Amino acid sequence: MAVRAAVAGASGYAGGELLRLLLSHPEVEIGALTGNSNAGQRLGTLQPHLLPLADRVLEVTTAEALSGHDVVFLALPHGQSAAVAEQLGPDVLVVDMGADFRLKDAGDWERFYGSPHAGTWPYGLPELPGARAALEGARRIAVPGCYPTAVSLALFPAYTAGLVEPEAVIVAASGTSGAGKSPKPHLLGSEVMGSMSPYGVGGVHRHTPEMIQNLSAAAGEPVTVSFTPTLAPMPRGILATCSASARRGTTPDAVRAAYEKAYADEPFVRLLPAGQWPATASVYGSNAVQVQVALDEAAGRVVAISAIDNLTKGTAGGAVQSMNIALGLDETTGLTATGVAP
Amino acid sequence: MAVRAAVAGASGYAGGELLRLLLSHPEVEIGALTGNSNAGQRLGTLQPHLLPLADRVLEVTTAEALSGHDVVFLALPHGQSAAVAEQLGPDVLVVDMGADFRLKDAGDWERFYGSPHAGTWPYGLPELPGARAALEGARRIAVPGCYPTAVSLALFPAYTAGLVEPEAVIVAASGTSGAGKSPKPHLLGSEVMGSMSPYGVGGVHRHTPEMIQNLSAAAGEPVTVSFTPTLAPMPRGILATCSASARRGTTPDAVRAAYEKAYADEPFVRLLPAGQWPATASVYGSNAVQVQVALDEAAGRVVAISAIDNLTKGTAGGAVQSMNIALGLDETTGLTATGVAP
Amino acid sequence: MAVRAAVAGASGYAGGELLRLLLSHPEVEIGALTGNSNAGQRLGTLQPHLLPLADRVLEVTTAEALSGHDVVFLALPHGQSAAVAEQLGPDVLVVDMGADFRLKDAGDWERFYGSPHAGTWPYGLPELPGARAALEGARRIAVPGCYPTAVSLALFPAYTAGLVEPEAVIVAASGTSGAGKSPKPHLLGSEVMGSMSPYGVGGVHRHTPEMIQNLSAAAGEPVTVSFTPTLAPMPRGILATCSASARRGTTPDAVRAAYEKAYADEPFVRLLPAGQWPATASVYGSNAVQVQVALDEAAGRVVAISAIDNLTKGTAGGAVQSMNIALGLDETTGLTATGVAP
Amino acid sequence: MAVRAAVAGASGYAGGELLRLLLSHPEVEIGALTGNSNAGQRLGTLQPHLLPLADRVLEVTTAEALSGHDVVFLALPHGQSAAVAEQLGPDVLVVDMGADFRLKDAGDWERFYGSPHAGTWPYGLPELPGARAALEGARRIAVPGCYPTAVSLALFPAYTAGLVEPEAVIVAASGTSGAGKSPKPHLLGSEVMGSMSPYGVGGVHRHTPEMIQNLSAAAGEPVTVSFTPTLAPMPRGILATCSASARRGTTPDAVRAAYEKAYADEPFVRLLPAGQWPATASVYGSNAVQVQVALDEAAGRVVAISAIDNLTKGTAGGAVQSMNIALGLDETTGLTATGVAP
Repeated sequence: MAVRAAVAGASGYAGGELLRLLLSHPEVEIGALTGNSNAGQRLGTLQPHLLPLADRVLEVTTAEALSGHDVVFLALPHGQSAAVAEQLGPDVLVVDMGADFRLKDAGDWERFYGSPHAGTWPYGLPELPGARAALEGARRIAVPGCYPTAVSLALFPAYTAGLVEPEAVIVAASGTSGAGKSPKPHLLGSEVMGSMSPYGVGGVHRHTPEMIQNLSAAAGEPVTVSFTPTLAPMPRGILATCSASARRGTTPDAVRAAYEKAYADEPFVRLLPAGQWPATASVYGSNAVQVQVALDEAAGRVVAISAIDNLTKGTAGGAVQSMNIALGLDETTGLTATGVAP
Repeated sequence: MAVRAAVAGASGYAGGELLRLLLSHPEVEIGALTGNSNAGQRLGTLQPHLLPLADRVLEVTTAEALSGHDVVFLALPHGQSAAVAEQLGPDVLVVDMGADFRLKDAGDWERFYGSPHAGTWPYGLPELPGARAALEGARRIAVPGCYPTAVSLALFPAYTAGLVEPEAVIVAASGTSGAGKSPKPHLLGSEVMGSMSPYGVGGVHRHTPEMIQNLSAAAGEPVTVSFTPTLAPMPRGILATCSASARRGTTPDAVRAAYEKAYADEPFVRLLPAGQWPATASVYGSNAVQVQVALDEAAGRVVAISAIDNLTKGTAGGAVQSMNIALGLDETTGLTATGVAP
Repeated sequence: MAVRAAVAGASGYAGGELLRLLLSHPEVEIGALTGNSNAGQRLGTLQPHLLPLADRVLEVTTAEALSGHDVVFLALPHGQSAAVAEQLGPDVLVVDMGADFRLKDAGDWERFYGSPHAGTWPYGLPELPGARAALEGARRIAVPGCYPTAVSLALFPAYTAGLVEPEAVIVAASGTSGAGKSPKPHLLGSEVMGSMSPYGVGGVHRHTPEMIQNLSAAAGEPVTVSFTPTLAPMPRGILATCSASARRGTTPDAVRAAYEKAYADEPFVRLLPAGQWPATASVYGSNAVQVQVALDEAAGRVVAISAIDNLTKGTAGGAVQSMNIALGLDETTGLTATGVAP
Repeated sequence: MAVRAAVAGASGYAGGELLRLLLSHPEVEIGALTGNSNAGQRLGTLQPHLLPLADRVLEVTTAEALSGHDVVFLALPHGQSAAVAEQLGPDVLVVDMGADFRLKDAGDWERFYGSPHAGTWPYGLPELPGARAALEGARRIAVPGCYPTAVSLALFPAYTAGLVEPEAVIVAASGTSGAGKSPKPHLLGSEVMGSMSPYGVGGVHRHTPEMIQNLSAAAGEPVTVSFTPTLAPMPRGILATCSASARRGTTPDAVRAAYEKAYADEPFVRLLPAGQWPATASVYGSNAVQVQVALDEAAGRVVAISAIDNLTKGTAGGAVQSMNIALGLDETTGLTATGVAP
């Protein structure tokens, strides 16, 4: 029997990617699609690539529109998910693709988001230690941020294996879809093509506390994170270049072994053969993660790099993967397509 | 029981795209993968996005390596397919993604390709009048060129309906993957990013006689074609802007009706609602075709525009679609994924 | 003694490109810079590449702010130039980079722009027959549209030489800066990267009557124009692919000779050697125009292709070139920089 | 009297950019242009954007061809400059745009380049402490690497002011022209568009010892450098994101003051106003450098970011700037053009 899924926020990039994936999911039937400013419009206008849904019309996001589904995905501006979730009943699986329920520390939430903390839901990054178990049977899931997904998967094995010091320096390049579909001058094609530029520099990006939360949990002690996001001239993809000081005695073999162990059985994370490095093009449109790691002995740092598609593994693919776990489906259902390259 | 498929030329862009699609095809089991200069290499090095096949190693292209399969796809340089096909036996389905068997006129072949004509196989563009029937049960299929696919689907309904004169002017923009994976200076990223440039101007591009063949068949009389291909700064996609003089009495309604009739039952061709125009991004990685048409009454021309992914519907997707028909499978099997956008 | 120049509309792409060129113009001193919604902002915020002007602040566009200059450039939305120009006095050189004064036919203006016709000024495309003389000493100049610039330079020699019939088919690809800096969803980087898409299809683009005006003047009879603009994934550049039916008896030599004659003494137009085709990258940021032409004897059409930078020769460079002529300066002053490639 | 300049290696990206700049240099006359595999070809074919030089033909690189010039620029593969320079006489200014004479430590050279060390020439990064004086009157100049240019300018003020610890973590994104014009599969447009990928990870990139040399000189003690270069989907530009541990007591004001002091009088380096961050698009085709810096107090790191054009300030512009100093010309001669944006 099909899982009936509703999508609140179907006109944006996260919602569109989710629908693309759900169209290929053999167990899911797509139910209500809602939006706010775009309610009443055909999806064919808003998401012209989703041809099978072209004639569907967006409803206004209300509890009524979203009721009667097994799963409700929320792709809403931050601060809005709690009110919707409350009205959906405890048996409905609510998957929040926004930030509201990711952070455990209310102070962090308030400092970075400037609004009251809504709570903490099971965290939808199954590859983290203990995360998969918390998702089994869950009825509320907080999908991780795109940058924390890429960064946590690049670095946590080095922390769990005790190979690095509790400080990480991260520079990540993201495709422009990570900045959303709301038109702003600096996101115009004319501005972004041919340009690399940083933003949110100096510890102010909202994904910083989420990275700290994940890496500190892996390390078993507080980890400081210097995080610089940059905007790259491509629609999709995150390349996260992460490093941390190697602990005395850390060897290349120990580093390799830690990552091999962490990812031996993970269906979506591919530790590349030595000498091959991740590329965002290789995971374009796919839920796959490419990871590679090296020990720079002269600089005394472990350098770990991951590539994901920010909209797939970084948002909607991660959401479907977690939904699969929560519902007891095979974790890879509907997510096996490889990257579209070149 | 699975269809066992071999791919000759698995290291190039056509071969890679075919493998991407076959990995999602529920009836196909991927058999031998061959190459020539790349034989002996891991596919993970050559096609890093095809993660499930990363550890497969390319064999040399020989009849022996290709034997024992139900289907053999050929992605070889032109002039090489006939010799391979001859050794494969009449019961094996041979799908040639090269040019060798597309043209009916030996003189055209020799003039444009400069080598002896190998013959003519059933033509793998099922949407053309009569083409689908010729593919049913076929054991030899010539996959169309990428430009002829886009152009023929944009224009043939106007010809079959008798709405336009037998002359067509076509300007098409292609992503760089259409030029292949062999490294040449003008195909470097540094050269193509930020640049539009024409090539093969003045009737000399090899796809010209194939377009003439298709449009003339639809018109029932010889059609002249002025074709200008241009290289666009994107990896994939063809946007074909096609026009022809409207016959006296042609009305906007008649044009719309002709296209609606032609594409009412086609699973992959989407005639867009009036006012919406194709975009290559909407069919990225998909076998879908977007088509739109208008009558410019002041200029006296019907303007028809199509968008395809040159590697999917334009090459490997078209090959799988034709294979499905030849084998009696549902035509859309393995090809239902929508475009990856944004 | 320096020419003192004001720029109304300094925050947009046309205004920014004009300032970039004026900064290198040895005879010009940059005076008032005005805007409307951006008045009061530093230019360093609005045009971060114009480092020498970073601390200049935009004034509101008023006659007072613009008074006291030798030249006033207008980069305003259409319909606004006449009111400003009226207040500037007949001795001030007013260079309108908008559309208001380009068309001679009031009916064409009203049909395509939906507002009353403001008049016709000397047309700033000096390469057209007779145009240069009309610009000498002029105090009002209408800068051509970017597409008409590219198209007219590609085709007029064929018309003045009587080599082609009075019908032209034009497909042009433009970089996204041609669509301006006002943020709209379809101009987001996420949407345009990787995509080619047409717009204004079927004779409705506002530059169509301007092309007809120019080509008809060259032909000495009314020319019909089928024009399809497309948006290309690059910030700058126009590639115009133009063709027209060859008149009986037209030979390749006659075509070549007509273009060589037309462009023998033009400082900015480069007819390329036979076999080399234009590329927008070659004229990036430059006032140069690359042109090439071929006779397709099988299709019976002359195919002429030009590449320009839409912001330079297509807008601001053309404006400076015409200003130079009007003021009696050497036509190339400040405009000799070559394209920035790769 | 004009400075007569020859360019050895005129067909590559560095040589082409140098010629673009020299064409606008009022004191330079362009003399011999040489190449090796491309000798005998027209420059119009090899560098189609350099229209004024289109009919110049490349000679073979020999001492004879290069003799009789005031300045000889070398854009040769590493290891070849010394032999050419030896034959040019001590009064000729030789500007080496390759790596051969950059490093002081012969061991570093041999370790990273695998060939005997040729020596050390005055280092063409005038903004470094003491560098300008060493260039005045010099007749041999080693132009810095593109990455070391961006990185050294981002970080040296923090080191000279004693604000940071002797360890730096650097992640830099480069446009593809940095990888040169020699065609390789991974540099094809199809591969690089839409993709970010790292290379030379783990301390093995050849620019690493050059960065260490510069930063250690500024710090007055050995600095360790973790350097990760990444390839970005754009033709030009480097964005260098650099950080180092803040020394105890370092304040935001002290950081700002150190950078203001370092760059108060530098004609090409622009420390941006607080809150504005560099973008490679803003320096496209320009010799300008944009720098910004922040103190991340939570992470305890100073984060400094620079943007340059790798071909201009990073190679050919830096070469011209140093030539100007060596010859006693105004340092900015021929280099005042702003970036081409959007």
